[in-house]
Amino acid sequence: MAQAETATLLIHCPDRPGLVHDVTGFIFAHRGNIIDLKQHIDPQAGAFFMRLEWSLENFTLEASEIMDRLQPLARRHEMNTRLHFGSQRRRVALFVTRDNHCLYDLLARHEAGDLPVDIPLMVSNHETLRPAAERFGIPFHHLPITPQNKQQQELRQIELLRSHQIDTVVLARYMQIIGADMIAAFPNQIINIHHSFLPAFVGAKPYHQAHERGVKIIGATSHFVTAELDEGPIIHQDVMRVSHEDSVEDLVRLGRDLEKTVLAKALWWHARHQVLVYGNRTVVFN
Amino acid sequence: MAQAETATLLIHCPDRPGLVHDVTGFIFAHRGNIIDLKQHIDPQAGAFFMRLEWSLENFTLEASEIMDRLQPLARRHEMNTRLHFGSQRRRVALFVTRDNHCLYDLLARHEAGDLPVDIPLMVSNHETLRPAAERFGIPFHHLPITPQNKQQQELRQIELLRSHQIDTVVLARYMQIIGADMIAAFPNQIINIHHSFLPAFVGAKPYHQAHERGVKIIGATSHFVTAELDEGPIIHQDVMRVSHEDSVEDLVRLGRDLEKTVLAKALWWHARHQVLVYGNRTVVFN
Amino acid sequence: MAQAETATLLIHCPDRPGLVHDVTGFIFAHRGNIIDLKQHIDPQAGAFFMRLEWSLENFTLEASEIMDRLQPLARRHEMNTRLHFGSQRRRVALFVTRDNHCLYDLLARHEAGDLPVDIPLMVSNHETLRPAAERFGIPFHHLPITPQNKQQQELRQIELLRSHQIDTVVLARYMQIIGADMIAAFPNQIINIHHSFLPAFVGAKPYHQAHERGVKIIGATSHFVTAELDEGPIIHQDVMRVSHEDSVEDLVRLGRDLEKTVLAKALWWHARHQVLVYGNRTVVFN
Amino acid sequence: MAQAETATLLIHCPDRPGLVHDVTGFIFAHRGNIIDLKQHIDPQAGAFFMRLEWSLENFTLEASEIMDRLQPLARRHEMNTRLHFGSQRRRVALFVTRDNHCLYDLLARHEAGDLPVDIPLMVSNHETLRPAAERFGIPFHHLPITPQNKQQQELRQIELLRSHQIDTVVLARYMQIIGADMIAAFPNQIINIHHSFLPAFVGAKPYHQAHERGVKIIGATSHFVTAELDEGPIIHQDVMRVSHEDSVEDLVRLGRDLEKTVLAKALWWHARHQVLVYGNRTVVFN
Repeated sequence: MAQAETATLLIHCPDRPGLVHDVTGFIFAHRGNIIDLKQHIDPQAGAFFMRLEWSLENFTLEASEIMDRLQPLARRHEMNTRLHFGSQRRRVALFVTRDNHCLYDLLARHEAGDLPVDIPLMVSNHETLRPAAERFGIPFHHLPITPQNKQQQELRQIELLRSHQIDTVVLARYMQIIGADMIAAFPNQIINIHHSFLPAFVGAKPYHQAHERGVKIIGATSHFVTAELDEGPIIHQDVMRVSHEDSVEDLVRLGRDLEKTVLAKALWWHARHQVLVYGNRTVVFN
Repeated sequence: MAQAETATLLIHCPDRPGLVHDVTGFIFAHRGNIIDLKQHIDPQAGAFFMRLEWSLENFTLEASEIMDRLQPLARRHEMNTRLHFGSQRRRVALFVTRDNHCLYDLLARHEAGDLPVDIPLMVSNHETLRPAAERFGIPFHHLPITPQNKQQQELRQIELLRSHQIDTVVLARYMQIIGADMIAAFPNQIINIHHSFLPAFVGAKPYHQAHERGVKIIGATSHFVTAELDEGPIIHQDVMRVSHEDSVEDLVRLGRDLEKTVLAKALWWHARHQVLVYGNRTVVFN
Repeated sequence: MAQAETATLLIHCPDRPGLVHDVTGFIFAHRGNIIDLKQHIDPQAGAFFMRLEWSLENFTLEASEIMDRLQPLARRHEMNTRLHFGSQRRRVALFVTRDNHCLYDLLARHEAGDLPVDIPLMVSNHETLRPAAERFGIPFHHLPITPQNKQQQELRQIELLRSHQIDTVVLARYMQIIGADMIAAFPNQIINIHHSFLPAFVGAKPYHQAHERGVKIIGATSHFVTAELDEGPIIHQDVMRVSHEDSVEDLVRLGRDLEKTVLAKALWWHARHQVLVYGNRTVVFN
Repeated sequence: MAQAETATLLIHCPDRPGLVHDVTGFIFAHRGNIIDLKQHIDPQAGAFFMRLEWSLENFTLEASEIMDRLQPLARRHEMNTRLHFGSQRRRVALFVTRDNHCLYDLLARHEAGDLPVDIPLMVSNHETLRPAAERFGIPFHHLPITPQNKQQQELRQIELLRSHQIDTVVLARYMQIIGADMIAAFPNQIINIHHSFLPAFVGAKPYHQAHERGVKIIGATSHFVTAELDEGPIIHQDVMRVSHEDSVEDLVRLGRDLEKTVLAKALWWHARHQVLVYGNRTVVFN
């Protein structure tokens, strides 16, 4: 049985009385059936956030009309809005270097139908993971990076992503700092996995730093990439207990499980339009 | 600065289009300002749940009028409704026997202002914890229980609770099975803490059972008390890792931390009207 | 740089004074250098457990001599002993049916060098996962099972495992109950992953049971397979928080992450000879 | 039944062959019965750590003789040793300011027999918690601190602690930076609870910092106090999931549960001589 098409509307605007009433009124007036509604008010910032998912089965507006017809309401309440349709899946590019654990984890989820995105291509600065890409039938693009060619290669990357209508870049342990052009081209669309509990252990070799400091818990953090290294809005974090018995190598090995699940979860929420960025933080409607 | 009075409305009814719109319309029409709105739809059961909290600061209805004026809407949608006011705190009776960890934890939270309830009395089948009650200035009622007097004592308990306008009974490690009269008198108002991860290890000595089975994780479960022992709707659960090194005595000791925090959290949600019972399950809007 | 060969000795015997002294004396006398020593005493059972790992670099006994020379000591203390060498990796057969998440997880770890075992073959009652096996170059044996041929096919399985010198069978979501012959042939060598927090929700459809009961946490359990279904010695368990918002389908999806990591961790410990079975429980020296 | 006296020996020395054999030989030669033995080797640092607990029931040495008789062995292996007896409980001073949650938690555990220490006194820079001290019968010393009198008051504190033979200072949310004299007087004997997941959010107002950064998990850390603020050896850490819905006030409230349990656990391990400091890290034999 085919599932009916759904629409998801994300709203961010100044908080004021009647917002939920007005938006649900719009849906109700056109015979939409609400599947999920979540809202959040930040009283300090005076900000309102909402995620509304409804069935288009009996909806009286065409998909292409919705935004137009919503305009008056959106303008009146100074709304930032985003509209997504269930049938239009995110188009994801996977960026990798040599580590395969996040990659295999995402590809296996994808194959099992647990990751509702399309993955038209992989990009890497090394050839190492080409066989992995080929195993799962994902086109693999090798774009080696040197200090000399870095900016130029990034422009090629952007072109490549654009030509594939990519809307989400996942850095699945991609060991390169992302340049300003790429970040500007994909604002809050580049998801990184950092192998520490941010903001602890920013930068290189976080497991070494963690071991040196003698922490009893390690973590992983998935965040959107911004111009400040490891400072972007956090989407998801998780942690794991360790002990004095764990060497740096143990932390590296154990941490892979965190990295895999934290990145996959962040991408899952992003794929389902459950994440709203606001300032340097996220609202995750989960 | 005094905080403005708030109202919280809990709704449970058959799911149908327009529910959120109608309810928020009622609030909006009387100039209420929504502080928090959470809803849940169970598509299988066709059931709708909502928790709505709003400020009464500029609300144009008197507190005493709200339910009356809501009636037409409630009737039209076959709603079960409950209305609470922020200034009317739950009145809680603590039932204890000999163990003091949950008791002290609740009393300390209460004293610190972290538990928004009134605690007019404690009831116990033993004298053991009278000094603890006195330390915190809570009247202590000793109602010893024998197989012979059990039913009669329970009727006295009910009378006592009624005379103090108690609306919530917390079994803070009360080592007696609650009788049918009491359960009928306080439906979904008696909160128990069971020292296992239910439904594993129902009944007596769950830590002994857990040790015998060789589990690697122990748990605690807070639930509403129903006629079936340890089978009532679960409000909250938490767990903790253990190992072959932990004896039964270790499990008992370690488990106390779980019991304390799980019970306190369940009571916190109940106190703030975040818990809806439906069938043998709960919706916890947290 | 090649790592020096290591030996691991597992001991289980009645507790008595001097055990650690005697065993470490044996190692010391032959110039072994202890890398790791863990012991556990169960005072109630009067039982002693030890895991001793040492470097054979300067050890004055040949690998083949060790057990012989240890005999007098072992006999005197009524020891059950097991000796393993670091260079002799466990030989693992993966049993699967249709679900691929545990399988891919194990194969990816194996390829990344994070799972120190050999995987000479896969066995399945369906053809579904043959492509997955082929992607990773693991020989795939399809042995379909019907009520009629079940016992006979199991004898073929045993033969197949024996012919490949398999010492560990991993049921990576293999949807068949293991028969008595197989269990007898591989005592405490068959590792299963059950998708619940045992002993809760034994048997079929544990996520359905969990949803029905309204639990707030789900789990997964890895255990050795014994004649009693889901009653064997538990090696590892983990859990995850869920809520009223999660449907059965959500539990199934979310639970996969637990199943993957719990099974992989159990196999990791087993592969490194960190697990001792005693009665229906395990000592896991981790 | 009285439990037999036990001794616990902590050893830290350069790693070399035969250490376990030699130490257990010493115990065995004098008919001690080992209750627990844990050792750890740090191969990078070439360091060996051991905790040995044995029954003195049939031990042929007097308690007062043990260290003398151990001397030759200790000298030969350049051991740092500490010897404790089960009957000699740690003498703990609780330092508090205004927050009562850690205080009540420790006092309740103590009263329940779950914290094997003596608590001869409380010290505070405010009068606020005097009633709490009196409820539990703990002498309360009010030593107000100003920028002018800080050093002088700290000398009075040291004197006070010495006169009560205090060996452990617990900063149960004591809102003063500890001075150099105090730290020198109680090296690795002052236990603090910091309300963040160190090294994230060092210093003041960690929950505000956490909220500002938009983390999805908060933590608490118990550590020994050294001259560098919040940089001492970490004993224990724990964390808790939070979301965009949690205000700073929520984090403060939720975090209290972490602070309580993390501090209590760290003190429990310290009380049982399970913690060894080495460099700026700890070995926790738990």
